[in-house]
Amino acid sequence: MKLKFADRMANVKPSAIREILKASSDPNVISFAAGNPAPEAFPVELVRKISDELFATDPISVLQYNITEGYAPLRDKLREVCRTHYHVGTENDDIILMSGGQQGADLAAKCMCNQGDVVLCEDPSFVGCLNSFRQFQAKLIGIEMDDEGINLEKLEAAIRAHEHIAFLYLIPTFQNPTGLTMSARRRREVYELCKKNNILIVEDNPYADTRFRGEAIDPIKSLDDDGVVLYLGSFSKILAPGIRLGYAVGPKELITRMATAKQAEDVHSTIWSQRVACRFLESVDLDAFAKHLGDIYRRKCDLTLALLDEKVAGRFQYTRPEGGLFIWCTLPDGVDMLDFCARCAADKLAVVPGNAFLAAGDEGKTQSFRINYSTPTDEQLRQGVEILGKVAHEVIG
Amino acid sequence: MKLKFADRMANVKPSAIREILKASSDPNVISFAAGNPAPEAFPVELVRKISDELFATDPISVLQYNITEGYAPLRDKLREVCRTHYHVGTENDDIILMSGGQQGADLAAKCMCNQGDVVLCEDPSFVGCLNSFRQFQAKLIGIEMDDEGINLEKLEAAIRAHEHIAFLYLIPTFQNPTGLTMSARRRREVYELCKKNNILIVEDNPYADTRFRGEAIDPIKSLDDDGVVLYLGSFSKILAPGIRLGYAVGPKELITRMATAKQAEDVHSTIWSQRVACRFLESVDLDAFAKHLGDIYRRKCDLTLALLDEKVAGRFQYTRPEGGLFIWCTLPDGVDMLDFCARCAADKLAVVPGNAFLAAGDEGKTQSFRINYSTPTDEQLRQGVEILGKVAHEVIG
Repeated sequence: MKLKFADRMANVKPSAIREILKASSDPNVISFAAGNPAPEAFPVELVRKISDELFATDPISVLQYNITEGYAPLRDKLREVCRTHYHVGTENDDIILMSGGQQGADLAAKCMCNQGDVVLCEDPSFVGCLNSFRQFQAKLIGIEMDDEGINLEKLEAAIRAHEHIAFLYLIPTFQNPTGLTMSARRRREVYELCKKNNILIVEDNPYADTRFRGEAIDPIKSLDDDGVVLYLGSFSKILAPGIRLGYAVGPKELITRMATAKQAEDVHSTIWSQRVACRFLESVDLDAFAKHLGDIYRRKCDLTLALLDEKVAGRFQYTRPEGGLFIWCTLPDGVDMLDFCARCAADKLAVVPGNAFLAAGDEGKTQSFRINYSTPTDEQLRQGVEILGKVAHEVIG
Repeated sequence: MKLKFADRMANVKPSAIREILKASSDPNVISFAAGNPAPEAFPVELVRKISDELFATDPISVLQYNITEGYAPLRDKLREVCRTHYHVGTENDDIILMSGGQQGADLAAKCMCNQGDVVLCEDPSFVGCLNSFRQFQAKLIGIEMDDEGINLEKLEAAIRAHEHIAFLYLIPTFQNPTGLTMSARRRREVYELCKKNNILIVEDNPYADTRFRGEAIDPIKSLDDDGVVLYLGSFSKILAPGIRLGYAVGPKELITRMATAKQAEDVHSTIWSQRVACRFLESVDLDAFAKHLGDIYRRKCDLTLALLDEKVAGRFQYTRPEGGLFIWCTLPDGVDMLDFCARCAADKLAVVPGNAFLAAGDEGKTQSFRINYSTPTDEQLRQGVEILGKVAHEVIG
């Protein structure tokens, strides 16, 4: 039988990142392409212990249906953690548990975005969320970034140029893919601009607890006294991504609609994950835990940077991140970036071509590619950077 | 700040069932309103043992990201189980794991349904899935049922009357809410009609393994040699609903698009759930396990029917199911059904008014309401039916 698909899915291609992740399951390929947190950062023993206790004391409620908004004690605990640790959430906000931060992008688009509406975003930005917006047939408008984050003049111009803006999607801290962090001053400017123009900000903050250098900067949501910001948090980097758990803090009427939308998508998120996360938050000192995560990521990042300094030796540029999982590499003008990435792949190193992250997608042009230092082992980092150096030497000289 | 929501979510109300579930968390209310499987049916010890083993042998891969389509060994095992136990799936089909069967309805609508397209369904049908279709702005057309299932002449008439039919949604076995099972003959007739008219059937089969009386009838998907049927399975009733795990078996090009859609919704389903489900299927004889489930549900159903026979004594009609979780009650003409349900609620018994399940929603008219016998304890069943009898006596005489 011939199927006729809905317009929104007729021509959608799978995310380049997920496809590469699949390809890079070839054990002979070194993957700098993933966005996986470092396995050594998973609190395995704690999760095992919590899970044991749950099955010993309360197995039925770990396995039974629960309400869409999330396990009530976890919502309460998160409200407290959001206020004290992340400095977000007021009495005008509500909170909902979700199946990963990704579902926040999906639910935000589902609740806010009619077909053809504009979603503004940093350019480049996280392809997974851009794909969520594309599937609700948003028109993506990417805004250039400068050293302080999204460029304010270009953002203002885009707001003037477009009607029907559903929201502005931002990753202000350790942005994926660039690793850039928006300055405190820019955060306030962007907040005020959006408030003035009645534009919702969707602030995605999955890398919040991975800082290993520099001064912490509060989320844009910490400035929010007027229901301007929907804040998306995630357990993927502080606990584990396989449990698929994230949350959103935002204006009550939006959270209510997100709950209705989520109800029709997956009823609620896995209860085992929610119960484990709740006891995890009750068990750890999150400041100390974030410092421990930072130590792990600092070591891996510094190793990678030292290897790049040694092997690439100025042939291309790369960022020196203060947190997060990624280094953003930029080839000199005149070098064919896609060809460079293909040569790496031929030598058994997977990296993600930068245009995967552009609002314009495959049509967009960039000299950059993304590498990840959290997933590979030290030995794989050594071998992978060796390949980068070799290809850079061949192509750039 | 004033938010302007997308049209699809501007006026959506939360599912009546979920809202009642929330209300019925009041410990003083006896809930016949839920659709929870019986807690005594959960294989708690087995899940605990499997989870222990996973954390002892392979904790990292339980916690790390995985691919969208699902944990590969579980997909393989399910392909085998689907062929041998459910008699569905050919070499032209593919399989994807999902976050509950509910996500199958969501992804089917996302992939197949443009705004304004028609979704045909049994009337009444499962409100959770109807809400998924509504959120993609489908036009729901409910088709009356008779003793053999969806009425064939009315289905044919609806197919003739409408263009742009996205699919036909069916729950052929122990239909929710009516508990009716479509005859083998009707299944073949519906399949042939849809094949001839190029209409996708979305066959939802969450109650597959709960039969406790009568002859098993194979799913419509077992007839499918032409990619006409998308089959939705669930672990909610054979393992546990809180793990949020279901799967879809269907034409490859549809499963590919569902994977792309799911990628943008939640990346993948919880890995712990998938690993537990995989070992569960490897550990149990599913025929024997289904018989064990049937024994649990037969006992609860028979107790409820005996109580209804005693307390209601012909004042209203009710079905005598052969499986599933529900009894469908129908009041005599002239009795105000909503008033009857409200009186029950005032007496601390929650039931679900039948119009919650109609394609026309709150606008629709029915004399029926749904009661669930799987969640309440025996004592609650006794007290609840006592209230039903009392209200019936007051209202009907």
